[in-house]
Amino acid sequence: MERKAVVLLSGGLDSSTVLLIAKDQGFSPHALTFRYGLRHEFEIDAAGRIAKKYGAQEHIVVDIDLGAFGGSALTDHSEIPKDRPVDNLSDGIPTTYVPARNTIFLSFALAWAEVLEANDIFIGVNALDYSGYPDCRPEYIRAYQSMANLATKAGIEGNQKLTIHTPLINLTKSQIIQKGTDLGMDYALTHTCYDPLKTGNPCGHCDACQLRLRGFEGTGLTDPLTYPE
Amino acid sequence: MERKAVVLLSGGLDSSTVLLIAKDQGFSPHALTFRYGLRHEFEIDAAGRIAKKYGAQEHIVVDIDLGAFGGSALTDHSEIPKDRPVDNLSDGIPTTYVPARNTIFLSFALAWAEVLEANDIFIGVNALDYSGYPDCRPEYIRAYQSMANLATKAGIEGNQKLTIHTPLINLTKSQIIQKGTDLGMDYALTHTCYDPLKTGNPCGHCDACQLRLRGFEGTGLTDPLTYPE
Repeated sequence: MERKAVVLLSGGLDSSTVLLIAKDQGFSPHALTFRYGLRHEFEIDAAGRIAKKYGAQEHIVVDIDLGAFGGSALTDHSEIPKDRPVDNLSDGIPTTYVPARNTIFLSFALAWAEVLEANDIFIGVNALDYSGYPDCRPEYIRAYQSMANLATKAGIEGNQKLTIHTPLINLTKSQIIQKGTDLGMDYALTHTCYDPLKTGNPCGHCDACQLRLRGFEGTGLTDPLTYPE
Repeated sequence: MERKAVVLLSGGLDSSTVLLIAKDQGFSPHALTFRYGLRHEFEIDAAGRIAKKYGAQEHIVVDIDLGAFGGSALTDHSEIPKDRPVDNLSDGIPTTYVPARNTIFLSFALAWAEVLEANDIFIGVNALDYSGYPDCRPEYIRAYQSMANLATKAGIEGNQKLTIHTPLINLTKSQIIQKGTDLGMDYALTHTCYDPLKTGNPCGHCDACQLRLRGFEGTGLTDPLTYPE
């Protein structure tokens, strides 16, 4: 019998690669996507395409209102600049950081895992490219896993040992792209840009586009997406 | 300057008491209520009344879709019985348990605390009346707090020590009611029932009503709500 796993799938490059890694490790993936803020509809569409193409057992999109509290360029829709000079990519905490985002995402994943009686959650956090994000650090993930093992019905009954899998945590973007390519990932299906054109094509300028493009450069592979001239 | 605190406020008896305790301890409360499932509109209205009457600085209601995954009588709207024989109240895990509920609630509270730059979150969990709920246990709360202190921007900058306050955790329902009464709480404003009449009045039969009524019995005070004859 296949082991069920909840896979957090944004529709971006990282989480899509994680879906293929979970499958490759023999898990039956249950893909979980969040709709928050307005800028992410292209990404949600991408998540749906990828879940379908790569055999997710189920795909659930949960609406959450991360904008209720303010505090991020990704949910505020105000004028905090999203593209900073590339040299500053690793300096401090980006304005695109969303307060407690991974904590909220993992908490919904935990709820679904409990209902599915799944012992495994996959999340595409990365400690290198996102060094400014507190909730992408290995010590955070370990603490979350400890908490999660006390939080659930199965935990109290002693018959579950929940694992948070972070297969990308120490990989560079280039290594992630190479890994996904080896597993058959078609990165044309993914959406990365924070500030896409009306066509859904990437802007090529935002932090996320810059990281992605540099990642492809490092592999010698070509990004299949269409960027502005 | 008053210290800000995020207070999880359902509109029920326990969390309303917690709001008064937070104020009594000198905090400026920011009340956070969740809308999930259909049975809770009376409770949300109650939360609004209580936040206003007892001087919450702000009151935010966040919609979350806990029903997306199934698994609970409180969100399923299916025919899992809500009232069990009273003798079984402490046996095992109730059908009204919602998977990972407190983990999700605390995660939103953490997001708001981060935006407010608040170091304190109050939650009305109780380890006695709700012994069947894994996420009401002290060891769970401790693990959550450890995780939370690694999850946030302030955590990474080392200038925050977040505390999850659980002032009710070891109190009986009667002690909670006595405490609230001493602090001036008008329990006529609160809503407890899982299965209210169309008027909003309590059914008197569900687990929650039974616990509340026994709590008032134990204090010698009279519950100001109107129950069926």
